[in-house]
Amino acid sequence: NSYFKIAVLPGDGIGPEVVTESIKILDAVAEVFQCAFQYSYGLMGAEAIFKTGDPLPDETLKICKDSDAVLFGAIGDPVFDNNPEAKVRPEQGLLKLRKELGLYANIRPLKTYVSLIDKSPLKREIIEGTDIQIFRELVSGIYFGEKFTDPDGKYAYDVCKYSTEEIIPIAHMAFKEAEKRKKKLTLVDKANVLDTSRLWRKTCQKIASQYPDVQLDYLFVDNAAMQLILNPKQFDVILTENMFGDIISDEASVIGGSIGLLPSASIGEENALFEPIHGSYPQAKGKGIANPVASILSTAMMLDYLELPEAADKLRRAVEHSIENGYVTVDLNTEQHYSTGEVGSFIADYI
Amino acid sequence: NSYFKIAVLPGDGIGPEVVTESIKILDAVAEVFQCAFQYSYGLMGAEAIFKTGDPLPDETLKICKDSDAVLFGAIGDPVFDNNPEAKVRPEQGLLKLRKELGLYANIRPLKTYVSLIDKSPLKREIIEGTDIQIFRELVSGIYFGEKFTDPDGKYAYDVCKYSTEEIIPIAHMAFKEAEKRKKKLTLVDKANVLDTSRLWRKTCQKIASQYPDVQLDYLFVDNAAMQLILNPKQFDVILTENMFGDIISDEASVIGGSIGLLPSASIGEENALFEPIHGSYPQAKGKGIANPVASILSTAMMLDYLELPEAADKLRRAVEHSIENGYVTVDLNTEQHYSTGEVGSFIADYI
Ligand SMILES: CC(C)[C@H](C(=O)O)[C@@H](O)C(=O)O
Ligand SMILES: CC(C)[C@H](C(=O)O)[C@@H](O)C(=O)O
Repeated sequence: NSYFKIAVLPGDGIGPEVVTESIKILDAVAEVFQCAFQYSYGLMGAEAIFKTGDPLPDETLKICKDSDAVLFGAIGDPVFDNNPEAKVRPEQGLLKLRKELGLYANIRPLKTYVSLIDKSPLKREIIEGTDIQIFRELVSGIYFGEKFTDPDGKYAYDVCKYSTEEIIPIAHMAFKEAEKRKKKLTLVDKANVLDTSRLWRKTCQKIASQYPDVQLDYLFVDNAAMQLILNPKQFDVILTENMFGDIISDEASVIGGSIGLLPSASIGEENALFEPIHGSYPQAKGKGIANPVASILSTAMMLDYLELPEAADKLRRAVEHSIENGYVTVDLNTEQHYSTGEVGSFIADYI
Repeated sequence: NSYFKIAVLPGDGIGPEVVTESIKILDAVAEVFQCAFQYSYGLMGAEAIFKTGDPLPDETLKICKDSDAVLFGAIGDPVFDNNPEAKVRPEQGLLKLRKELGLYANIRPLKTYVSLIDKSPLKREIIEGTDIQIFRELVSGIYFGEKFTDPDGKYAYDVCKYSTEEIIPIAHMAFKEAEKRKKKLTLVDKANVLDTSRLWRKTCQKIASQYPDVQLDYLFVDNAAMQLILNPKQFDVILTENMFGDIISDEASVIGGSIGLLPSASIGEENALFEPIHGSYPQAKGKGIANPVASILSTAMMLDYLELPEAADKLRRAVEHSIENGYVTVDLNTEQHYSTGEVGSFIADYI
């Protein structure tokens, strides 16, 4: 296949700016690798609420379902963050999109860059050589379980529920990835307290026999939160449920010292979505200072998903080249820096 | 009051060794500050399972209920950790004890020690001057909500439930503490996803008007997990629910670089329990290398609770004196170090 339909959801804050750079890259890739991308744009997030009242308009959902892959910027706006009572919120759009597209596996690769290592809050000797891949379950657990607040506001509950069917596919995905890497898989849970965690453990334990080369370890989430900082190099592939994944993947994102570089992929049976880890960063909106690399590396993950591995590799090399040669935005170098568009163009030119 | 009944639960692993040092300290305090402590020992944890089949024998519970304060060592044994199918587990004893004694507030102070700052995985400039107090709700939420695993093992659920009555007492406690400190309280939750988190927010928002001097901030737990590492100095008092508190308080414990120093208090209306944060550390059992300071500083929190603030202050000074003068265990100095008992005696002598 050499013709791809890409749904583009720029979203809020710096989302549109960084997505523009990803499109620049895709255009360069199309030229060099003889393929074509057709872009369909959709509204999403606060932007969509302002224009349509709905954080995920049906139109947008349709575009995404019809696409080969979704390129997503960021959502979130201070208007909503500062008003916990708001009935309609940008996040609802993202959660609905994940569910509707069945994006059950959120994948976050974490690496340190040699030239940026001193930007980390952690010491060089702790983080040097860290290379982790986190698999977070994304469409179940306490995020999507029954929720209730009693009308008098006296109590509330949220249900965390998992079935083995929801655990098995992402577990296989994580085992397969571990097989390709250092063959170590760590399941993060709270099996000393939660029934759902014990279900995760048993399910993974069963699957493990199909991957005899992979060593499966278990770590309680509280201990994992410590170990990620004390010794991140001990990890290879991490697998965990939705809520724990939200917490520990954000925690782990500080290791490299530059959240502006971190990509993610959310994968389902039929659909896939690619987005930078950083949020909408409204303070930087429209200033041309946002780091486009996280979005660009998410685009590289998209190219892998579309089975264009050579293009993906070339793009990753282009990013490394730009970073090692100091073509970076202000977050990475306050003295010598370039704009969002300049960094994007530099990377596109390299391709 | 000058006569106190102390329930002593040494527990597993290094628990007995560090508790022995706390008793040494209490004996010194009794002499100097003219008071008396009567100790009643109880079985608890793996130790209790091996001897009675029950991780929290009724006898132990009774001793605790009759006491003015409980001094607790640690629980946990590899025999159980490596067997997720074990029906009876040491942790059950601890959870039951918390519930039965109504210990709704787990309090963890975190400070950096000037002479130990370079032991942290984080850089000096990030952590220097960090001074945080974490309040974790301890007897509700997903830990104690309904749990279910279907007999066929196809699905499981855990319910996270909170009532305003469970939130209000610990919220007041945290606001009061913030008033005495830098007047900043951060509620950590996931109010963009969970109904229970929205209940926490609303409840704290209402209470806030009674503490006009305290600034109440909200932080999503994923962001909090990042901020604790990026800039721990921004925090003063943190308040959070049970599961999030488990994760972020353990994460935060790495900041100072020496988990062997960190104490905790678990407080209820009628009872209180004091324990080091570190676990049972079975590898070190019986070797005389365990750091007794976390247990000793937990004892200082106990002295505060028993309204012996002068004794508590003196004890804290004694600990600082021992650390600044290098009277430390091997975890803090691999070249020049002392045994568990020597460090305990040094601190007791200072008193
Ligand atoms: C915006 C929010 C609902 C979302 C989540 O918690 O999943 C975000 O934090 C993320 O990790 O993508
Ligand atoms: C042992 C375990 C059940 C316990 C908890 O999760 O509360 C421990 O991690 C703690 O924080 O005291």
